Amino acid sequence: MTIRLPHRGWLFDLDGTVYRGEGLIPGAAETIAALRYAGRRVAFLSNKPLQTREQYAGKLTRLGIPATPADVINSSLVLARHLQSLDPGAPVFVIGEPPLVDELRAHGFEVRADHRVRWVVIAFDRTFDYAKLNTALQAVRRSGARLIATNPDRTCPTEDGEIPDCAGMIAAVEAVTGRTVEVIVGKPSPIILEVALRALGVSAGECVIVGDRIETDIVMGKRLGLATVLVLTGITPADDPRIAEIGPDAVLGSLRELIRS
Amino acid sequence: MTIRLPHRGWLFDLDGTVYRGEGLIPGAAETIAALRYAGRRVAFLSNKPLQTREQYAGKLTRLGIPATPADVINSSLVLARHLQSLDPGAPVFVIGEPPLVDELRAHGFEVRADHRVRWVVIAFDRTFDYAKLNTALQAVRRSGARLIATNPDRTCPTEDGEIPDCAGMIAAVEAVTGRTVEVIVGKPSPIILEVALRALGVSAGECVIVGDRIETDIVMGKRLGLATVLVLTGITPADDPRIAEIGPDAVLGSLRELIRS
Repeated sequence: MTIRLPHRGWLFDLDGTVYRGEGLIPGAAETIAALRYAGRRVAFLSNKPLQTREQYAGKLTRLGIPATPADVINSSLVLARHLQSLDPGAPVFVIGEPPLVDELRAHGFEVRADHRVRWVVIAFDRTFDYAKLNTALQAVRRSGARLIATNPDRTCPTEDGEIPDCAGMIAAVEAVTGRTVEVIVGKPSPIILEVALRALGVSAGECVIVGDRIETDIVMGKRLGLATVLVLTGITPADDPRIAEIGPDAVLGSLRELIRS
Repeated sequence: MTIRLPHRGWLFDLDGTVYRGEGLIPGAAETIAALRYAGRRVAFLSNKPLQTREQYAGKLTRLGIPATPADVINSSLVLARHLQSLDPGAPVFVIGEPPLVDELRAHGFEVRADHRVRWVVIAFDRTFDYAKLNTALQAVRRSGARLIATNPDRTCPTEDGEIPDCAGMIAAVEAVTGRTVEVIVGKPSPIILEVALRALGVSAGECVIVGDRIETDIVMGKRLGLATVLVLTGITPADDPRIAEIGPDAVLGSLRELIRS
């Protein structure tokens, strides 16, 4: 049994790469176990701010891939850390779900339900509604609030098909406020990757990123000098013309093919 | 007392021109009465799909400007008529409020709550939420539904300030579906103006449009060859640089100045 690439650090996207909904991608547990057994360092990246890192680690463990919260880098964590560097303790209004709110509070931010804030934080939010859109508008108009978002994805794959993701919330807020979101911390931003490389303790050249999205996982990896592996178990079809255009280092049917027996 | 312009037909925007919220713009009732007394034909245009024409006529009458439903051209009516010409009786999913749904049903459309539709109708909707955004996405992905919208406004002026308008809903749907809305029937589309000119029985050259929005009322009027009057009682400030750029035929403090005593 050999591992296809020699790199010390391995970053895996989750949805569409390691699992889809509640089902593990066949071979995922064995592949991760083999990498770890060979001494490679593994972490999991997610643009989704819908769960806490504890919940992600619990889900991975339950599906057969033992993981701790420290193994998981999601966009909630990265947003909270990045905003801490820009404006620590600021009052914020959140278009997002409770795990993001909890992460922001844990990082010392004052999460408010009204427009008296310095930042509007925009995330993938299945409880998004008109009232939140209006509060975002008032925060910008009356308080001069700035805009920051977790992730740029249009849709999120689930077992029942794709559902609207953060791009819908970002577009609505930008359209009514006339302002552009200043920073989106999730993939393909270098911000999330820098946090992940620090967590693994490796440099970009020593690391592989494995994911199912050309426009986030692969584009970001190439831009920062990581090795890139596209898997076809998620949103990108095998005949996507962007594969030839962007040129990932490898295109695999699934992450099972990372290991040759 | 003289009327500033000789035209037979007069189209008035409502919000910001004739009233603001529940308050009539001072002089509005007297000006409309004088125009009607002089034999000019008057109709009211609104991009807002939030009320029925009956409700608009009732409100105008209550505020001191007697009006019937036939005097009111709103974007719900225009959308229903336009869609009738494109795809009569089609199944539709509506991001919108009950008056729009009622207008569509009255025009023979099958309004559905699921994605099995040929059109997604997008409107200013204070009950917009993630579930509606998801149904719109599924309608496009699974049923190949097409997109049509009532009005392109970013915000709507109210007595308490501006609130998010249809542009927010359009942007969210376009962002998650990756599709562009095919037609927006409300101002500045020529579609609403053609319906209004037919209702008044006048040609474009015989008609004035009076409104508070440069980018809809004035741009549309100029494009179709109407005389254009910008009033400063709504969203456009006196120092807006677009006034010189677009060049309405007159810029007035309010519609009271349409009459010289």
